Amino acid sequence: MIDKLITKIQKTQAPIVVGLDPTLKLIPKQLLDAAFKEKGENPEGVAEAIWNYNKGIVDAICDIVPAVKPQIAMYETFGIAGLMAFDKTVKYCKEKDLVVIGDIKRGDIGSTSEAYAQGHLGKVVLGGKEYRGFDEDFATVNPYLGSDGVKPFMKVCGEEKKGIFVLVKTSNPSSGEFQDRMIDGKELFCHVAEKVAEWGSELMGKNGYSYVGAVVGATYPEQGKIARQIMPKNFILVPGYGAQGGKGADLAHFFNKDGLGAIVNSSRGIIGAWQQEKYAKYGAEAYADAARAAVLDMKEDINSALG
Amino acid sequence: MIDKLITKIQKTQAPIVVGLDPTLKLIPKQLLDAAFKEKGENPEGVAEAIWNYNKGIVDAICDIVPAVKPQIAMYETFGIAGLMAFDKTVKYCKEKDLVVIGDIKRGDIGSTSEAYAQGHLGKVVLGGKEYRGFDEDFATVNPYLGSDGVKPFMKVCGEEKKGIFVLVKTSNPSSGEFQDRMIDGKELFCHVAEKVAEWGSELMGKNGYSYVGAVVGATYPEQGKIARQIMPKNFILVPGYGAQGGKGADLAHFFNKDGLGAIVNSSRGIIGAWQQEKYAKYGAEAYADAARAAVLDMKEDINSALG
Repeated sequence: MIDKLITKIQKTQAPIVVGLDPTLKLIPKQLLDAAFKEKGENPEGVAEAIWNYNKGIVDAICDIVPAVKPQIAMYETFGIAGLMAFDKTVKYCKEKDLVVIGDIKRGDIGSTSEAYAQGHLGKVVLGGKEYRGFDEDFATVNPYLGSDGVKPFMKVCGEEKKGIFVLVKTSNPSSGEFQDRMIDGKELFCHVAEKVAEWGSELMGKNGYSYVGAVVGATYPEQGKIARQIMPKNFILVPGYGAQGGKGADLAHFFNKDGLGAIVNSSRGIIGAWQQEKYAKYGAEAYADAARAAVLDMKEDINSALG
Repeated sequence: MIDKLITKIQKTQAPIVVGLDPTLKLIPKQLLDAAFKEKGENPEGVAEAIWNYNKGIVDAICDIVPAVKPQIAMYETFGIAGLMAFDKTVKYCKEKDLVVIGDIKRGDIGSTSEAYAQGHLGKVVLGGKEYRGFDEDFATVNPYLGSDGVKPFMKVCGEEKKGIFVLVKTSNPSSGEFQDRMIDGKELFCHVAEKVAEWGSELMGKNGYSYVGAVVGATYPEQGKIARQIMPKNFILVPGYGAQGGKGADLAHFFNKDGLGAIVNSSRGIIGAWQQEKYAKYGAEAYADAARAAVLDMKEDINSALG
């Protein structure tokens, strides 16, 4: 799947992943009204609105980006109904040939990580037939439990030719609280990055990059530079661009000299573009066109920064 | 909820939480056969078997333990159908007045942690009406992202009078890989424990313990002793007893002198007791009675160690 991701990045010339992180505030009123009328003003209604909202955006951007990243928390908050919208969204994005990165940040002890890995990347076999749970192409994984929380995901990735992005240095303001603490002369996130490089060497794709990638926030460009050096063969998923404050100019060091090695996420900046002054002309009805315009602007911003 | 947990521990004299972590291997054949006959040999069939299996165990133990801890990964592995069994299990356990600790190990950047917190401990309000997602009483939380990944959970805990257990030192073999690394003369898990104590001081229950607890594995008794000292007012959820190797004698240091301060989890050791030689006389049909017997033995083991 890392090979497919790279091929699609090269084809679209857009190292961009659109975060499908729907919230009630981002969904245009006409979609909420229609869904509530059909299903009621309840979690089922919200799930219907989320699904229609996502579908509109996916239809508008699927030819110009390689990947999407639905953040499962935004669905889980509406319980089972929300997770059904997550499931439907993942399936639809895959139909549209988008690479789907499930932003699930799971991680547990061995047998439990294995259950998560099966549910999100793999399968269960019942009566000789295969069943897949959420079936994303990649998943994000939390490393706090160490190797035996990560390796079950790698095992499934090897079987399914899928991938993971391990949290190394997250984009949030307090990420340094533990991740930047010094251990033997290096920050904790550097030690995690070293492990990612080590884990990743066991699962290499055809294009010179590993099935095992890392998450490093755009909000920390200096740390991005260091992470890039420690993990030359691991793709970096870069959240924090746009609404969280990361800029195109900050991104250059996340990439390798081959122009590859990173994929930059924007969520609210794209899916909520219609609410921004810059894209106000589109209005709520054309929220998906606003998202497309925002992707094209982001592409230009990143490509000009990469020179 | 921490006050309710303490009251129930005192009433049952059992600082025990039963992990409801169903796997296909643990479910007796008669339950699988019946469920497959009704729903088909597919995830819906498994979910039905899981639900019946859990219900049997809950009915058999609800008067002798204060709490249960369903591990969501074991349900998530079967996709939506599995999560519906999780939801049903949580609701049933609450009907039986058990405290439900959702072992979800979530944690993300601020707004995303807020979404998880709402979905698992809180509510959403739609059209003036409240809707609850999974509605556990406690949730486990991963601290790798620092304070702003944890505080949204605390905010919801304050509103709902619920609680969290933050991963400090996990029970798995590789937990030391990052958690035991030395930072300023102390292991990382000690720094996390200090933060738990700090966070916890903002949300105190009536019985002298905080809404914010910690997870420290029974497999690391020495670290349990240290964690206990750093966090005198934070309850410790102790996994790793039984199947993972932790013994009653290892547990004394996890408790405070008031005999409180810790609750010990056993999953396979209880719900899979019927497969152990010790409880073989019960057979598959009486798997729930075997679970009850295993709880009573565990209670004796812990209480004699605390003696």
